[in-house]
Amino acid sequence: MATPPFVQIQSLRRDGDTTQPGLETIAEEVPVALVYNEISHVVMMATPQDLADFALGFSLTEGILAEPGEIYDLAEAAHATGIEVQLTVAAERFQALKARRRNLTGRTGCGLCGVDSLDEAVRPSRDVGVAPTITHGAIDRAMASLPDLQPLNRDVRALHAAAWASRDGSIVLVREDVGRHNALDKLIGAMAKQAIDPRDGFLVMTSRCSYEIVQKAVMFGIGIVVSVSAPTALAVRMAETSNVTLVASARGTRYNVYARADRISERA
Amino acid sequence: MATPPFVQIQSLRRDGDTTQPGLETIAEEVPVALVYNEISHVVMMATPQDLADFALGFSLTEGILAEPGEIYDLAEAAHATGIEVQLTVAAERFQALKARRRNLTGRTGCGLCGVDSLDEAVRPSRDVGVAPTITHGAIDRAMASLPDLQPLNRDVRALHAAAWASRDGSIVLVREDVGRHNALDKLIGAMAKQAIDPRDGFLVMTSRCSYEIVQKAVMFGIGIVVSVSAPTALAVRMAETSNVTLVASARGTRYNVYARADRISERA
Repeated sequence: MATPPFVQIQSLRRDGDTTQPGLETIAEEVPVALVYNEISHVVMMATPQDLADFALGFSLTEGILAEPGEIYDLAEAAHATGIEVQLTVAAERFQALKARRRNLTGRTGCGLCGVDSLDEAVRPSRDVGVAPTITHGAIDRAMASLPDLQPLNRDVRALHAAAWASRDGSIVLVREDVGRHNALDKLIGAMAKQAIDPRDGFLVMTSRCSYEIVQKAVMFGIGIVVSVSAPTALAVRMAETSNVTLVASARGTRYNVYARADRISERA
Repeated sequence: MATPPFVQIQSLRRDGDTTQPGLETIAEEVPVALVYNEISHVVMMATPQDLADFALGFSLTEGILAEPGEIYDLAEAAHATGIEVQLTVAAERFQALKARRRNLTGRTGCGLCGVDSLDEAVRPSRDVGVAPTITHGAIDRAMASLPDLQPLNRDVRALHAAAWASRDGSIVLVREDVGRHNALDKLIGAMAKQAIDPRDGFLVMTSRCSYEIVQKAVMFGIGIVVSVSAPTALAVRMAETSNVTLVASARGTRYNVYARADRISERA
């Protein structure tokens, strides 16, 4: 019944002078609508797994809900055009969402599309607050173990992963998606559900670190972000003003630290 | 005065047991607001080059304008929070945009975020219409020359490129951006301004081919899309229903054809 994360599609494979039929495994990409108290709020293109985590994480990082307990009920409904995640949420949260939509100031999607003026685009920076100190070794350990901990992505390297590592670098949770911000929202939703303390470990993203990754991390109180690929300049500036430790271009035991390097120490 | 596409940012480089200061060149990412007749419509995170092309291309692929002549005036204004592109457009187009916004059915951003219900998410498929036949050799030629034709990206491989190739595979236009859909909107805007016929060549994307790439190509009448990386299943389905030839995972002289392979021939 569940939509699979990958599908097999016939292709013609061309290699030099030869052309022959092939069967390619490619990532699914499904419109997922988040419906709050019967009002459809946003549609994201996502990998159709862990959608309850996604709905919770998105609601938290977009400031729609403040805690998991404000979701009273959650159901998924498959349609020909996509999947609806129907949330029943606390009345005051729904009123706030309706007011935000009326003012057209609702932030949607990856945190920026849907925003309609510059004043709303980059949210006021907030200090992320308490964050731990970790060692180089913890980062190395997380980077080394992550490739084997991406169950969906094992065969087809087409999904981004967001992972949560404890202080010593042990990866405790992984979520995957075709969209990097969706992978992060899924992870944050799963962390919130399991009451994992965002001040007691660090985030690892297999993707590039653009602005919305830091923004969503800050919203959830994550103070250390490690990204496999490069950051954008705006992501670095936001990490600085929010006091987030930003490690990027992390490959093997090499990486660059762009902000708050003091939280990374030689030894425990 | 213009915001550069890259900035240099100090980092701490860690490599094994050594840590030393470094200077990294990373991509800028700027909030760009499109303002139609003084109403701010959408903000995208973009590389701040070729913004006039971007504004025109976005307006065309999102169905806000039908042709370049509907823009009467265009100006850029830099603010502390980002860049505004101020367009003065034909009155009837502005009325249509206002009506769309009132109904909250405006499609924004990458073509999907900002959409608030499943019914709006995937636009009804339309047939792309006339498209040429090209040879394997033309695809090889375009792929071989593209890496040297990305001026912004030459040193820092962090930007996506969208390129237009003539039937014989000569690349005639390239636009670059941190966002792949922005690169494509910039290219389409530049093509429209120069009155380049979308039925007389093919599109090359250096990125993954997700749904919005095919959707934007179809909106502009581009019938052949070649993508360096893999497509999503939804992109393939849309290519099929829109009669778009979709070539993907193109590396060197290898690639897979996912839809309408009949438009690619052995010889001219």
